[in-house]
Amino acid sequence: MPRKIIIDTDPGQDDAVAILLALGSPAELDVLGIVAVAGNVGLKQNAQNALKVVELSGVAGVKVYAGSERPMRRTLVTAEYVHGKSGLDGPDLPEPRQQLETQHGVDFIIDTLRREPEKTVTLCALGPLTNLGMAFVKAPDIVPRVQEIVLMGGGLFEGGNTTPAAEFNIYVDPEAADVVFHSGVPITQVPLDVSHFMLGNAERVERFRTLGNRTGVATAEMLEFFERFDEAKYGWDGGPLHDPCVIAYLLKPELFQGKHVNVTIETQSDLTRGMTVVDWWGVTGRVKNVNYLRSGNDTGFFDLLFERLATLA
Amino acid sequence: MPRKIIIDTDPGQDDAVAILLALGSPAELDVLGIVAVAGNVGLKQNAQNALKVVELSGVAGVKVYAGSERPMRRTLVTAEYVHGKSGLDGPDLPEPRQQLETQHGVDFIIDTLRREPEKTVTLCALGPLTNLGMAFVKAPDIVPRVQEIVLMGGGLFEGGNTTPAAEFNIYVDPEAADVVFHSGVPITQVPLDVSHFMLGNAERVERFRTLGNRTGVATAEMLEFFERFDEAKYGWDGGPLHDPCVIAYLLKPELFQGKHVNVTIETQSDLTRGMTVVDWWGVTGRVKNVNYLRSGNDTGFFDLLFERLATLA
Amino acid sequence: MPRKIIIDTDPGQDDAVAILLALGSPAELDVLGIVAVAGNVGLKQNAQNALKVVELSGVAGVKVYAGSERPMRRTLVTAEYVHGKSGLDGPDLPEPRQQLETQHGVDFIIDTLRREPEKTVTLCALGPLTNLGMAFVKAPDIVPRVQEIVLMGGGLFEGGNTTPAAEFNIYVDPEAADVVFHSGVPITQVPLDVSHFMLGNAERVERFRTLGNRTGVATAEMLEFFERFDEAKYGWDGGPLHDPCVIAYLLKPELFQGKHVNVTIETQSDLTRGMTVVDWWGVTGRVKNVNYLRSGNDTGFFDLLFERLATLA
Amino acid sequence: MPRKIIIDTDPGQDDAVAILLALGSPAELDVLGIVAVAGNVGLKQNAQNALKVVELSGVAGVKVYAGSERPMRRTLVTAEYVHGKSGLDGPDLPEPRQQLETQHGVDFIIDTLRREPEKTVTLCALGPLTNLGMAFVKAPDIVPRVQEIVLMGGGLFEGGNTTPAAEFNIYVDPEAADVVFHSGVPITQVPLDVSHFMLGNAERVERFRTLGNRTGVATAEMLEFFERFDEAKYGWDGGPLHDPCVIAYLLKPELFQGKHVNVTIETQSDLTRGMTVVDWWGVTGRVKNVNYLRSGNDTGFFDLLFERLATLA
Repeated sequence: MPRKIIIDTDPGQDDAVAILLALGSPAELDVLGIVAVAGNVGLKQNAQNALKVVELSGVAGVKVYAGSERPMRRTLVTAEYVHGKSGLDGPDLPEPRQQLETQHGVDFIIDTLRREPEKTVTLCALGPLTNLGMAFVKAPDIVPRVQEIVLMGGGLFEGGNTTPAAEFNIYVDPEAADVVFHSGVPITQVPLDVSHFMLGNAERVERFRTLGNRTGVATAEMLEFFERFDEAKYGWDGGPLHDPCVIAYLLKPELFQGKHVNVTIETQSDLTRGMTVVDWWGVTGRVKNVNYLRSGNDTGFFDLLFERLATLA
Repeated sequence: MPRKIIIDTDPGQDDAVAILLALGSPAELDVLGIVAVAGNVGLKQNAQNALKVVELSGVAGVKVYAGSERPMRRTLVTAEYVHGKSGLDGPDLPEPRQQLETQHGVDFIIDTLRREPEKTVTLCALGPLTNLGMAFVKAPDIVPRVQEIVLMGGGLFEGGNTTPAAEFNIYVDPEAADVVFHSGVPITQVPLDVSHFMLGNAERVERFRTLGNRTGVATAEMLEFFERFDEAKYGWDGGPLHDPCVIAYLLKPELFQGKHVNVTIETQSDLTRGMTVVDWWGVTGRVKNVNYLRSGNDTGFFDLLFERLATLA
Repeated sequence: MPRKIIIDTDPGQDDAVAILLALGSPAELDVLGIVAVAGNVGLKQNAQNALKVVELSGVAGVKVYAGSERPMRRTLVTAEYVHGKSGLDGPDLPEPRQQLETQHGVDFIIDTLRREPEKTVTLCALGPLTNLGMAFVKAPDIVPRVQEIVLMGGGLFEGGNTTPAAEFNIYVDPEAADVVFHSGVPITQVPLDVSHFMLGNAERVERFRTLGNRTGVATAEMLEFFERFDEAKYGWDGGPLHDPCVIAYLLKPELFQGKHVNVTIETQSDLTRGMTVVDWWGVTGRVKNVNYLRSGNDTGFFDLLFERLATLA
Repeated sequence: MPRKIIIDTDPGQDDAVAILLALGSPAELDVLGIVAVAGNVGLKQNAQNALKVVELSGVAGVKVYAGSERPMRRTLVTAEYVHGKSGLDGPDLPEPRQQLETQHGVDFIIDTLRREPEKTVTLCALGPLTNLGMAFVKAPDIVPRVQEIVLMGGGLFEGGNTTPAAEFNIYVDPEAADVVFHSGVPITQVPLDVSHFMLGNAERVERFRTLGNRTGVATAEMLEFFERFDEAKYGWDGGPLHDPCVIAYLLKPELFQGKHVNVTIETQSDLTRGMTVVDWWGVTGRVKNVNYLRSGNDTGFFDLLFERLATLA
């Protein structure tokens, strides 16, 4: 039986690759729905992008919902400077034939968790945690029903990518992150410490391009656009594929190494807001609430991507 | 045409009197629904209390919804030490014949504001602002559709009643209050500076008891229980009728005096969390977002209460 | 035996009146020294102002020291908009014949407390608490040797006079205030709640002018300048004589009413920084560290001023 | 002409090695004085330890001062769990024949900077920055006279060693650190990112032991005690020689690599207090105030230590 997941996302080139990886892995993953959230760009665009990625994949019957337009407390911050004006600049993606579902994404999460058997649904969070936070506040009864949350966000040894202390997803909605990290649900966190080493270098981009399908070509074009920002900033060879690590972890956890630790979200200070404060050395005595991944096998990760994306349209 | 209102509340003896005042004023106020929120006691009890108060009033057809069980970010703090174990200790209230609506209170607020003509619905908030904050985050499109928010909370010259700096309603959910106070919706705030002078002294309690109806007797019994806390703490003659001021302001605004000022919610500091920082003297240059009431006519206020509660069952 | 005091001050018209009141009360108060601190205006000007006030008084042998040029952590904020460019605008004050002492004011405080018998020296603080904070950090051994600190600063029921939450003296150096309020030394606090009712109205100004000495005339001229700001802001009849209350409390404590309470300084939040959070109702369980004065007898206060200032040059 | 330095320190085994390195380098460094500060252990013990280390070195005429007993605002936190009860556990050090100077260490710093030609004195800070912060607040005129501050403290890629976010020296007195980092004085910061790679492993300890002098033997014994904590926590081979990097940087800057960046001290949040927030990637636009060292040549560093410590008694 494939594992049931909901993908919460603000696509985003790397979100797109994560969605494609999930849709290319039907034996292991049953995507109950994709929920958009405001983040990399605004909600409407993100929802449209999610539809386009589903269309690109050629997989039918994947429902897409629009969730929260704004963070739980802060004014929305976006990242067009990374992802381009559309949030998904690079390829010409096919127009989606499918429509957005009319239900609010937060309610879809709530209803799904209430309907499915307890602890059988995993939430994969690739953007700001607003939808999860809103769902947990609106319907606290669903919290113990979640099997696991696997999320991309935060960082320790790599610092932040938006401010010196904060990674984008957590920075955009630190209050939602605080709700999620305090919820008691088992969390696996993919931080920058992992994703900064999953670089889509020229050879890998070329390999996507020559997979033999339109998904491969579009992925290559997305990565070529996306890598510009990080190459300019960090001097890297290739852009980091943050979000696909979440799906890769579900498919092959052995690709990653981590530790159970306490992670607490900084919400109080203007200077460090949105930092995931990771008690890696266990000095605080705070409860261990997160399986914090610290490293990964990039070759294995890309091999998995090549294999699964090749199965799509 | 009566003014359309939604009452958001955590009854609470003074909330109960506010509901009764609204239900006793059908010529001026059309109560579209009552939404319970976690606050003085837990959500379930508050929702049950709202049903009981409606039953007591004898008014038919008033729908009651359960809203948020917990604040947007913090752990719930309650006030049984003020309101008693039931939240509404004092009288033996009639068992409600009516049922709770099944829709979540936050969605009722959203749907009502979308359905009713723009700027024709006023939100009367008598408890923590969680439901309003959640509705505004879930559905930002409703924000410009609200006619006005009239809320009980905060204080300036009287300090707080829960911590030295914070009043209970704001203290319980400062993040929701921050969302509401930053929303741009016209706000009238009834703070402790007003409500601490609306004291249900012995003579007034007696006048309720002898109104000649069960509502009057039950009100007298509620006030006798409720006044204990503030009489012991402040040495007052009678307990302060905080929440009915919200409804009284809608009925007779001339009973109150105030000024348009900026009010900002303290969320950053542990020491002063939940304080409504009122720029009474206009020294900050921050935008004026609140009609802050600073004083009221207590005799006129109680006369209004006697008059309207006498019309109920 | 007169009580030994050190006056720590940033004169300031109301500081000047406080100094004059002390110098006019030799039977009760022995002024061991006056220490200037940066506050209303810069340190050099404040020190010069202190010398001028001593010269005006005609009292010989009062030593004046310059203390701290800047707050313990923040950038200095000044208040020329209240006190005028010189800090002491209004009268033409006589040029001082006396020189500033060369010792740093913080070291004068330390040396005096070490030299005088334990618990025989009272610190009268009329400005930001920088000098006291610096002395307590540099020489913690002096802390238990202080008899009492009587300070002007903060407020509760009146809010702040610099920001909505903070009074000037505390706002300028909240970290120093925090050190002082946590020191364990007995503190009597004169807040705005007292000083805002000690108004130098026209009749009182006239009475100063006709005291029959140059001190009276200069005091009248200082008050006429000083009152402009508060009259314009608050619509009062006369300016509030904040700082002289500190000396008046030492001379006639029966003029004031207060209560022992906990006062904690807000240092964490940008919004409320420098607030004296007063647990007037004892709800926090925090240790009672302050004799917080809440009201005073303004007629008795001004009678004391008239009587003592009349004895000066 | 040797460079004039003042060593501000809380010895501490690694502080001791730093002092020995400076005293063993008279051609390059002229140690004008050593000032103790409360930190690893209390002030009295730290001052005594400084005297013992000077005695051990056999170098005559090095003056030792006691500075601040407590941080500028916080309650002192110490680290006997790392350094042992004496702060310098390990060897039996010779009783010092020299006495502490009577002048307060803060005043020694002030007087020295006023007396020596402008920008000819470098402050080497090996402990909490209390003495520097106090000197800069007490005598702002000395700030532009300082040539450079080279300090051990903070960290970025290694996180903190006291809390998840904060290194000990900065954590103990974040307000003093804030004063220093905002002072405008050129700062070179040796963070954990450098010092965690300067490990006194068994081979190096042995090399100290066999230098042929008592200093070498005592150093070996200090390192053997000191390494226990970090070996147990991090699983390293040897303890990190944090503080000697400061002196090594003055002697051979080419051993270290860094970048000019903005570093801001977190003082607002309980969770991240004392963190040095390093804008390594220049994303904030804040002024570059620090030469932040990020790596060093450990072989060259230890060779320098062996060479210079061999010249002592």
